[in-house]
Amino acid sequence: MPKYSIGVDYGTESGRAVLVDVRNGRELATAVHKYANGVIDRVLPGTKIVLEPDWALQDPNDYLEVLKRTIPAILKSAKVAAKDVIGIGTDFTACTMLPVDERGTPLCMIPKWRNRPHAWVKLWKHHAAQAEADTLNRIAAERAEPWLKLYGGKISSEWMFPKIMQIAAEDSEIYREAARFMEAADWIVLQLCGLERRNSCTAGYKAIWHKRNGYPSSDFFKALHPSMEHVVRDKMSTDIWSLGRKAGEITTVAARLTTLKEGTAVAVGNVDAHVSVPAAGITEAGKMLMIMGTSTCHMVMGTQEQVVPGMCGVVEDGILPGLQGFEAGQSCVGDHFAWFTRNCVPQAYEVEAKKRKMSIFEHLVDRASRLEVGESGLLALDWWNGNRSVLVDVDLTGVLLGTTLLTRPEEIYRALIEATAYGTNIIVENFEKYGVPVHELYAAGGLAERHPFVMQVYADVTGRTIKTARSGQAPAVGSAQFGAVAAGAKAGGFDSIVDAAKAMGGVKDKVYRPRDKEHKAYGKLFAEYVTLHDYFGRGANDVMKRLKAIKASAVRAGARG
Amino acid sequence: MPKYSIGVDYGTESGRAVLVDVRNGRELATAVHKYANGVIDRVLPGTKIVLEPDWALQDPNDYLEVLKRTIPAILKSAKVAAKDVIGIGTDFTACTMLPVDERGTPLCMIPKWRNRPHAWVKLWKHHAAQAEADTLNRIAAERAEPWLKLYGGKISSEWMFPKIMQIAAEDSEIYREAARFMEAADWIVLQLCGLERRNSCTAGYKAIWHKRNGYPSSDFFKALHPSMEHVVRDKMSTDIWSLGRKAGEITTVAARLTTLKEGTAVAVGNVDAHVSVPAAGITEAGKMLMIMGTSTCHMVMGTQEQVVPGMCGVVEDGILPGLQGFEAGQSCVGDHFAWFTRNCVPQAYEVEAKKRKMSIFEHLVDRASRLEVGESGLLALDWWNGNRSVLVDVDLTGVLLGTTLLTRPEEIYRALIEATAYGTNIIVENFEKYGVPVHELYAAGGLAERHPFVMQVYADVTGRTIKTARSGQAPAVGSAQFGAVAAGAKAGGFDSIVDAAKAMGGVKDKVYRPRDKEHKAYGKLFAEYVTLHDYFGRGANDVMKRLKAIKASAVRAGARG
Repeated sequence: MPKYSIGVDYGTESGRAVLVDVRNGRELATAVHKYANGVIDRVLPGTKIVLEPDWALQDPNDYLEVLKRTIPAILKSAKVAAKDVIGIGTDFTACTMLPVDERGTPLCMIPKWRNRPHAWVKLWKHHAAQAEADTLNRIAAERAEPWLKLYGGKISSEWMFPKIMQIAAEDSEIYREAARFMEAADWIVLQLCGLERRNSCTAGYKAIWHKRNGYPSSDFFKALHPSMEHVVRDKMSTDIWSLGRKAGEITTVAARLTTLKEGTAVAVGNVDAHVSVPAAGITEAGKMLMIMGTSTCHMVMGTQEQVVPGMCGVVEDGILPGLQGFEAGQSCVGDHFAWFTRNCVPQAYEVEAKKRKMSIFEHLVDRASRLEVGESGLLALDWWNGNRSVLVDVDLTGVLLGTTLLTRPEEIYRALIEATAYGTNIIVENFEKYGVPVHELYAAGGLAERHPFVMQVYADVTGRTIKTARSGQAPAVGSAQFGAVAAGAKAGGFDSIVDAAKAMGGVKDKVYRPRDKEHKAYGKLFAEYVTLHDYFGRGANDVMKRLKAIKASAVRAGARG
Repeated sequence: MPKYSIGVDYGTESGRAVLVDVRNGRELATAVHKYANGVIDRVLPGTKIVLEPDWALQDPNDYLEVLKRTIPAILKSAKVAAKDVIGIGTDFTACTMLPVDERGTPLCMIPKWRNRPHAWVKLWKHHAAQAEADTLNRIAAERAEPWLKLYGGKISSEWMFPKIMQIAAEDSEIYREAARFMEAADWIVLQLCGLERRNSCTAGYKAIWHKRNGYPSSDFFKALHPSMEHVVRDKMSTDIWSLGRKAGEITTVAARLTTLKEGTAVAVGNVDAHVSVPAAGITEAGKMLMIMGTSTCHMVMGTQEQVVPGMCGVVEDGILPGLQGFEAGQSCVGDHFAWFTRNCVPQAYEVEAKKRKMSIFEHLVDRASRLEVGESGLLALDWWNGNRSVLVDVDLTGVLLGTTLLTRPEEIYRALIEATAYGTNIIVENFEKYGVPVHELYAAGGLAERHPFVMQVYADVTGRTIKTARSGQAPAVGSAQFGAVAAGAKAGGFDSIVDAAKAMGGVKDKVYRPRDKEHKAYGKLFAEYVTLHDYFGRGANDVMKRLKAIKASAVRAGARG
């Protein structure tokens, strides 16, 4: 009797569930639910409250809706009975966090707090806590906190503590009212099995937790903000659950919501990127997986803890048990191209695409791919959403250089693609420089799946062969693998994620190989990228930060005027 | 009996004729003819020859077509008899130059040479002679040529001798065949009155001629290219005619072409920008006129010859008799905004503009004008077409910095507008720094006429009041003034351009005044502009030049491949 596992992957705009055959990883059904409130970055829903720049919130109701809509749909579509589903695993964007009350109810679901922006979920790309991150980094450096170097020397404003600091500073009532600040990854597991199971991955990468040393000291938190002295003791779980463990079982309430059977095994929560590593069949050191979607997350495992400046972090067992998991990232990749398509493609191109019976995307790619390397004369810095690695600075902004009166949209489009490839190359070179070998590149995610032109550019820029995960929905499949591990071998699943990865993961036949001529040509352009990267990113000219400050005060003046 | 004068203004895309009442400057009729071949920058007409990057040619037939189509039209429309037209003046873009044979026939009109790119008119914005300009500047500096400092220390690739050098280097046959290299401004006068009248304005500003010192030496030209030793003696007129003189009279052939009467006075040719100064009623030092069209030309008169680094030139009597005429320029202004509108405005904006019953231009301006200064967080370098002043370098390219995922088209549009205003401010400050006072700003041209938002940005950025020329077609009206001066007072015209300017020129009632808050805010942004301007423009990082070199070799490789 075949057994099945379900993976649910929470992305930035939508949630996706997949039903997987445990024996071979075959995907039997998929359903996607787009969040009704999406990314909240202008006006707080149901109010007239205008958010300040760089805010990005979400509505946890949207997360529940995903469970309710997608799980019954995939069971029905595959004609699989709930009793044959042995486990469910979930993964989330991170650090996506929310304040909840004693019972785990998000404060923003409580009418009293609904009109308070800080009561809502702060999405990973909420970038309004940069001032707090700066303060945290300054204090950590002054106190010579030993953990700082394990996070590349800088804690990102996207992570847990800067976000909590912002709440403490700007809305002390919400801070006080929060019984817990939870990762959404753990909150969704709480909804499924009724148990708080703080996962080791987000605790490690996003909340400065270390397997042997625990969290930073209360002295440190006190220095950040007086009310935060006991933030860990009072408002966070210190009971950390490693990846691959079973979190619990589907509760009566969750069974009603999902139509799964009570008692179905639920895996400890995970992060969308990390969970994809076994989906690509990777179980060893030196193989870097790039999850390429709205942003890109780079994960590579190593055998030793290494200090790598500008990486997001190194966490023991953070990706797979028994290895050091290194993470780096680019905050703006697919988002970058989507921004371009939405804001910069002229009507004439839409018309031409229609005439050619192509999507605007296909039309742009077709034109961009006909260009020689360097032919556009353009160079971009891919910082439309700040820089996560290796500069760790959300206040950096994008640059496009080399425009002339003959510059065409497809040239800009290609320059943006190339810029993200240069950004990845910086990350790869940085890891190798600091002792973390990167032998092979793997890719997964929407871009890897649907954008062969981008993959070829990455191969040409990095000079490395790129394999892509077999599944077009690697995070969901990875989560299903963890669901099968939560169920265990006895129930028809697996006893380790390595076993699950071997049975259920793998790569596609199509491999992207670097071409010599193109790689050589990109070498020159990459050198120029590095010069600009360092000039604008390492303090020689902080114009981007000053423009952001001017912008913030202009927005405030505009709101007053 | 009222008397009339005709001014014909040759722009980049079209030619325009205006019929003016000599007594008061009233414009009775206008006609515009768009050049059939426009700006030739991709394929040579009638051939499959693909031009290299940065080429920009024109077809002289288009210039004749302007005379043939517009002059009869304005006479007819205003019901004015040819006998009541006392004079005609013309102005042209410059340096727009062409090789002609002994009889003045453009080589590109001769079938034998028609498929040779170098036989055609090189438009002012032909930018493919930068290597030649670099050589010229290096040699001039090595030889310590005394005239170099009068051109801001650099001769532009847009000017006469770099263009001739390119012909000599790349097509020696065309070079040999050319009996003359003529300014189009003088060629059109030759068509009207049958006489070659090399005008002092283009000779001075574009061909290194000095009222007292003449042209550079043949030694210098020999150093540029062996075959150019006697280029001045053999291939250029050394008989220089100052502005305001009568060139000759309408010939039988020209009368047939234009329906003007034989014997009608024809003014010495002029440049579109310079001829506009009297049209705005300016007859004294310290009033800077900006001709704002596809590019901007800045002209201000002074009482003394001054050395101003990065200006285009200082020419005695170069604008009006008796004063030193200083010129500077920006090579990309209206072109900049047009590029944006053509290449970067998304379909949704077109749809919304339509819904609002606005042109896309009005819609963009409406949105851009609602932003506070600095609110976009964007900063641009306005070098889409190189930098004419004060860096004098066509190999510089555009930059847009500060983009985020929330950046909207109208923000980019506004940033481009602001960048051109910063560029003007650099020019104004540079003149004042080097002893040429700029008391007041005046503007004329398409942008001044139709784009009050741009004018207000310029006032706010420069902190100066801006007046605009009364006529919406200042160059044509200025040319008509010179036509009336060519006719002379006895014939019902004037004996000096100062008299003509007083009678026929002037400004509009509407004045743009700088606003304190905005000027202060722009001060901060301008400081950032200056830093980037100097970083990319003064050699700290020559990335733009290197990208251009990579581009050129990629284009060559693409053409081979």
